[in-house]
Amino acid sequence: MYLSKLFLPITKNLPADAKIKSHQLMLRAGMIKQASAGIYSWLPLGLKVMKKIEQIVREEQNKIGAQELLMPTIQSSEIWKESGRYNDYGEEMLRIKDRQGREMLYGPTNEELITDIFRSSIKSYKSLPQMLYHIQWKFRDEIRPRFGVMRCREFFMKDAYSFDLDDTNAKISYNKMFFSYLKTFKRLGLQAIPMAAETGPIGGDLSHEFIILAETGESKIYTDKKIFDIKIEKYNFENTSLEKMVKDFSSVYAVTDDKFNKLEFDKKVSKENQVITKGIEVGHIFYFGDKYSKPLNCFIDSQEGKKNSVKMGSYGIGVSRLVGAIIEAKYEKEIMKWPKSISPYDVVIIPSISKNNKENLSKSLNIYNELKKQNIDVLLDDVDENMSQKFKKHDLIGIPYQIIVGSKSSESKIEFKEVNFESSFVDLKDVKSKLKN
Amino acid sequence: MYLSKLFLPITKNLPADAKIKSHQLMLRAGMIKQASAGIYSWLPLGLKVMKKIEQIVREEQNKIGAQELLMPTIQSSEIWKESGRYNDYGEEMLRIKDRQGREMLYGPTNEELITDIFRSSIKSYKSLPQMLYHIQWKFRDEIRPRFGVMRCREFFMKDAYSFDLDDTNAKISYNKMFFSYLKTFKRLGLQAIPMAAETGPIGGDLSHEFIILAETGESKIYTDKKIFDIKIEKYNFENTSLEKMVKDFSSVYAVTDDKFNKLEFDKKVSKENQVITKGIEVGHIFYFGDKYSKPLNCFIDSQEGKKNSVKMGSYGIGVSRLVGAIIEAKYEKEIMKWPKSISPYDVVIIPSISKNNKENLSKSLNIYNELKKQNIDVLLDDVDENMSQKFKKHDLIGIPYQIIVGSKSSESKIEFKEVNFESSFVDLKDVKSKLKN
Repeated sequence: MYLSKLFLPITKNLPADAKIKSHQLMLRAGMIKQASAGIYSWLPLGLKVMKKIEQIVREEQNKIGAQELLMPTIQSSEIWKESGRYNDYGEEMLRIKDRQGREMLYGPTNEELITDIFRSSIKSYKSLPQMLYHIQWKFRDEIRPRFGVMRCREFFMKDAYSFDLDDTNAKISYNKMFFSYLKTFKRLGLQAIPMAAETGPIGGDLSHEFIILAETGESKIYTDKKIFDIKIEKYNFENTSLEKMVKDFSSVYAVTDDKFNKLEFDKKVSKENQVITKGIEVGHIFYFGDKYSKPLNCFIDSQEGKKNSVKMGSYGIGVSRLVGAIIEAKYEKEIMKWPKSISPYDVVIIPSISKNNKENLSKSLNIYNELKKQNIDVLLDDVDENMSQKFKKHDLIGIPYQIIVGSKSSESKIEFKEVNFESSFVDLKDVKSKLKN
Repeated sequence: MYLSKLFLPITKNLPADAKIKSHQLMLRAGMIKQASAGIYSWLPLGLKVMKKIEQIVREEQNKIGAQELLMPTIQSSEIWKESGRYNDYGEEMLRIKDRQGREMLYGPTNEELITDIFRSSIKSYKSLPQMLYHIQWKFRDEIRPRFGVMRCREFFMKDAYSFDLDDTNAKISYNKMFFSYLKTFKRLGLQAIPMAAETGPIGGDLSHEFIILAETGESKIYTDKKIFDIKIEKYNFENTSLEKMVKDFSSVYAVTDDKFNKLEFDKKVSKENQVITKGIEVGHIFYFGDKYSKPLNCFIDSQEGKKNSVKMGSYGIGVSRLVGAIIEAKYEKEIMKWPKSISPYDVVIIPSISKNNKENLSKSLNIYNELKKQNIDVLLDDVDENMSQKFKKHDLIGIPYQIIVGSKSSESKIEFKEVNFESSFVDLKDVKSKLKN
């Protein structure tokens, strides 16, 4: 893509309410535009990043045997009345009357609807376990939407649901998802810490939040630094291994401020191991047994011919929220650097162009075409600006690799730079192989 | 994928309102489940087909330089008041009040919102032309939703918008999109006829519908059969070629019943060339100049320094609707056959299995693994049913290629069948190459 053609409205003017760095960066770099309070349009640069995150989340869900479907955004109030949540949910639920006067709502979550799909489709223990997920827009009518995509009203979320015959099997599904989440966040370039959590309005008795570290995070984190030494590579997909993984994580002290107790912290964690920092929640998993299946009459015939309410869990990852969270974690000293796996482009070519000299631009075009042939997704900055303006702009765009074409570059050696490192002069074929793996 | 694991609730019970064959097939084959009136959940089989259609639409939009962004589903009423459509749109617009009492709506289309994005981003003729599109859920509160996904309330649609300095350039954008649509439908295995159309509530003075032929179609079509001889391959992306293409199509008589005139038909089309059939609208394109840019003050500085309202067109393809339309066109004599490009799986392996003989299943597993290695997306029907039940089920699922593993198949020769053709015994490597290209 040529930058001169890209719909990328970079702006200097920030609204007063853009208080955190992800919100500021996303507006300045033309990733999003506010449509109304807490509701955003995703412009090409922002959408590209979000789609890459979505695809990684999808692939990791598929790997554990979860199947993708898609529930609608607008739901009938009926099933929410069946579960008893229609009145309980409060004002965050966007309630709607259609032209016939029927009570509808914009789904804030999908436990009811998925239970309805499941109960009409699966009747026998033979078809269990099942995991179903979708990646869909949701709406929560926050009273004070803020922080850009971090706490907005219309948001994009992956929510998965597991269905099992009994608690023992349900726990296995829960552990699989736990594993899948750690792998997902790792592929996104993030280190996520699982923490035992409150279940809140979803209900149930087992729950973990996944928190990534960011100095500007919303919650304070108290942990033993040993938690960073647990490597998910040592676990595999066997039940016993997964169980051990959850146990290993749970045995290390790690809490958010609402559960923090100084005496306990000092007792359980040696002084030199104590880490006090901030974090952002990026995923949340719940096990709640038959909280929804029972009122919704979702029964399964057991092997003994008995009718059991199916045992369910739900598992969320905020896909649009992750775009902001990753920026909070990776945007430092006015320089953004996207993790390679989700960068909007693999590399940017930045030629020094002047009115009288288009030679660098034509050199750049050659490099551009060579990289394109290798299926490398290249952005070419063909805009007529001086280099310091260009570099400032690319500090916002955040592509992790740059090829700088100026007087110093020759036919055979190219100036190649990884953001936050020194540049070096290398062969084009080395650039290709660096970008390919 | 093993069929025994696939979440595929095949059903025999059809609701009374499932009157057309796409609605019936989609319910019977477990592609969709109704959530409430005119609102559907897309189950794994249906979602897979829809995602493939979405991806083809996206690729063809990208090829003509249109850029993808994503506007939210919920819009503020403000911009609709600016354009004057808030009151005009009528009851099909789903109107919502949020918890603060603000008037919101679920977007039925996006001319206003895209104009708002454009006016705050692009100011100069130098940045034109621009084409922007998104693929997003929309809602129209139909008084009588029916025909399944063909006339539902929540639907998935690609809508693109073009922005040009003047009518001449705007016409070029219009022609590019015209070309792109014909290529898109061709890749979907459809022959679409472009027809001059009324502009309706979108407004403007130039418009074409794209209609595919289907005996069960909603509109009657009168055309000269010469229109089927116009091959898009003879045109290229040059302006003059595109102009000729539109002219060639426009010169052949082709109208829907609202424009039909028997005298004109008989005068312009020789008896032996007259085709009277039925069709389904799958795309619609509009040129409406400054109908939205003028009231919304969306101005562009021209080269002479004058402020011009930007000239706009809009271009829609109903992605969810296409799933139904393709079934209407391809489901005949109780047998569904998906076009290869959008089939939910590339091939299905159907072994004859009995309680005492699992040999065919293990043969099938070998074939399955071989095909998987080639990145061929295979469904293995490992369900313990008799062959006639299996074939009936696959008549619904509609995968165009079948590998039948029974007593007649040997290690070296495999029974391979293209739906609606005779099967033959061939080498596995021939199957691979057939499926790969």
